[in-house]
Amino acid sequence: MARDSFAVPASVVSMRTRNPIRAIVDNLKVKPNPQKEFISLALGDPTTFGNFKLHPTCVEAVKTQLDSYKANGYPPSVGIEPARAAVAKAYTRPEAPLTAADVILGSGCSDALNLCIGVLANEGQNILLPMPGFSLYETLASSKGIECRFYKLDPARTWEIDLPHLESLVDDNTAAIVVNNPSNPCGSVYSRAHLLDILAVAEKHKLPIIADEIYADMAFAGHEFVPLASLTTTVPILTTSGLAKKYLVPGWRLGWVLIHDRNGAFAEVRKGLLNLTQLILGPNSIIQAALPEILKAPQSFYDETMAQLEKNAAVSRELLAGIPGLNPVFPQGAMYLMLGIDLTVFPSIADDVAFVEKLAEEESVLCLPGKCFRTPGSFIRIVFTPPIDKLESAYKRIREFAARHHV
Amino acid sequence: MARDSFAVPASVVSMRTRNPIRAIVDNLKVKPNPQKEFISLALGDPTTFGNFKLHPTCVEAVKTQLDSYKANGYPPSVGIEPARAAVAKAYTRPEAPLTAADVILGSGCSDALNLCIGVLANEGQNILLPMPGFSLYETLASSKGIECRFYKLDPARTWEIDLPHLESLVDDNTAAIVVNNPSNPCGSVYSRAHLLDILAVAEKHKLPIIADEIYADMAFAGHEFVPLASLTTTVPILTTSGLAKKYLVPGWRLGWVLIHDRNGAFAEVRKGLLNLTQLILGPNSIIQAALPEILKAPQSFYDETMAQLEKNAAVSRELLAGIPGLNPVFPQGAMYLMLGIDLTVFPSIADDVAFVEKLAEEESVLCLPGKCFRTPGSFIRIVFTPPIDKLESAYKRIREFAARHHV
Repeated sequence: MARDSFAVPASVVSMRTRNPIRAIVDNLKVKPNPQKEFISLALGDPTTFGNFKLHPTCVEAVKTQLDSYKANGYPPSVGIEPARAAVAKAYTRPEAPLTAADVILGSGCSDALNLCIGVLANEGQNILLPMPGFSLYETLASSKGIECRFYKLDPARTWEIDLPHLESLVDDNTAAIVVNNPSNPCGSVYSRAHLLDILAVAEKHKLPIIADEIYADMAFAGHEFVPLASLTTTVPILTTSGLAKKYLVPGWRLGWVLIHDRNGAFAEVRKGLLNLTQLILGPNSIIQAALPEILKAPQSFYDETMAQLEKNAAVSRELLAGIPGLNPVFPQGAMYLMLGIDLTVFPSIADDVAFVEKLAEEESVLCLPGKCFRTPGSFIRIVFTPPIDKLESAYKRIREFAARHHV
Repeated sequence: MARDSFAVPASVVSMRTRNPIRAIVDNLKVKPNPQKEFISLALGDPTTFGNFKLHPTCVEAVKTQLDSYKANGYPPSVGIEPARAAVAKAYTRPEAPLTAADVILGSGCSDALNLCIGVLANEGQNILLPMPGFSLYETLASSKGIECRFYKLDPARTWEIDLPHLESLVDDNTAAIVVNNPSNPCGSVYSRAHLLDILAVAEKHKLPIIADEIYADMAFAGHEFVPLASLTTTVPILTTSGLAKKYLVPGWRLGWVLIHDRNGAFAEVRKGLLNLTQLILGPNSIIQAALPEILKAPQSFYDETMAQLEKNAAVSRELLAGIPGLNPVFPQGAMYLMLGIDLTVFPSIADDVAFVEKLAEEESVLCLPGKCFRTPGSFIRIVFTPPIDKLESAYKRIREFAARHHV
């Protein structure tokens, strides 16, 4: 039986695969003020301004592999053994030991998350996601027909999880909890005590956790990053991370899944992950081959990156504090902060989206509205990685903007 | 309601994602003869032996991008514009024009195929795949719950498609036809006339085509590679290809989809493809940035690669001809040939798998059984990219092996 036309429908899956940020950003009415230099505090990419750079030894490691002409062939779909062993060695902890067999490389942390969500949940099941949270979780889950249930984070407790709320969302169809620490968009770094409380809920409901730790180790003074898996001997955890943020190469697309099996709970999941890697066959072979050397970047590189981030955070703290109507939740790590907006004192501004649009129009400063991250209340997200002079200028304009519109 | 155990099931999708090669290869009983040097003719990776190398200008192009420190950030999920424009320019034809907007980059041709199958077919629909054919098609489709229907290729006509058979498989649930030309595992290069016949069937049933042209331009003297899309103004075609084979870097994971829209048939499919790229965000940014330069490798590079491949094909033709009981189908392009086995004259050998196992055990030569590609009848696939001396040695051993077991 022949069809009568070539109007080709796109698949159901492709139509339900959406990044909610896109719908909002594409509809943002942003017309920067031509009188003022445009400054974007919107993009979670530390490489944009050129002030954060990967270490030269990492570049050399990649060149060495290029020159060898020996790392151009197909790697195994889970990644080459030396690379997986190097990741295992770098991330193993006495309380959460890892070997190469517990590491799977992916094409960026996105792919690592895609593997984890794909292996743990079926269409029709649900997973629990942070709100506010990184929008890709929703993109990945909804693409697979997995229901997203959003648990609240509490800005009054620097974005700790509202655990009773999280628990209220659990039912027989819940497949996993996604925990993002340190957090995008919140810049929060959870305490050991809070992580233990989260694990207790997972333990009670026997739910595996996907721990998105792409901002691992990016904690500021006074805060300690604790890998979630190091705090449990019973809750099975798939940890995702990669080179993107710590090594300042988000475009390189090298991420990984750390399989923290507990008492064999992940026996079948291991096989499922291996199966799923066969779809796209993992990250670039040259970067894989260079990975052991990349992970040996000198301690001074990490220290300098963190010092620069902390300085930017301090400038943010100094210049965004005490602005009437604005309530920043200061960051404990990563490269984000959420700025609360008291809409009651800005009568000409309807919501976070309007705030962002007006700020861009008048001050040429672009942020993302909290809506992009399903943030309850009124917040905007600030990425504080631009050079200090640009940050200072942007914050000064935000201050003037707020004063101008404040009743 | 709490579960009572942490035994975490793997998802249905992850369990049905299988590469059929794996099940066969993992169960192959291969014990090479320790008296003889092991020679693999099994792996479709031209870089394995070091005799096929990408051109130094391609290496330099990547290094230039590394040194710039400007290509480390997130590219758009469909790929950066200059890279897509360069692909469009390289592959545009007067009869099938392309612009950057018609090009989507993927993480290898695997990802490109994954995007195409994912956008065209729904769970429960079917797609038509070549038999013998590249096993990844089946992996990708079955992962999505898409039924695979296999159309016959005819070895007596150098693996042309048995079009009546293909047509007999079409029903209301058929979403697309996958055509692989030049072919893995067959080494066939279809004539213009045959391609037109294929298009006529697609036209009749109003079926879009996924044209896997990863071996584009790899045709031997006397055969011409014709891009399928250049032969139609009505059949919408998604062409997949990439750097893997022609540029000798399968591990680099840079592939692309060429959207050959016809009269707006792909309007919705374009959106769907864009959506799907948001899942893993495309290939490595450094390789993307270097792509315009990579595609400018000198003509002498392509010529030398092809000359070397043709020489290897000629050696294969010379040394595999006239062996009693073996019926090679000589290649017209790519880097594969299929060797038919007349089991009636090898009474001690049950099938293609047994032939492969016994050949490895006695002669330390490894090939893949045709079963890996769902080949009807008894065939083994030979990858003829090893250095000539190894090829000669391997073929001599195959000849001796055949003589020894022939009745």
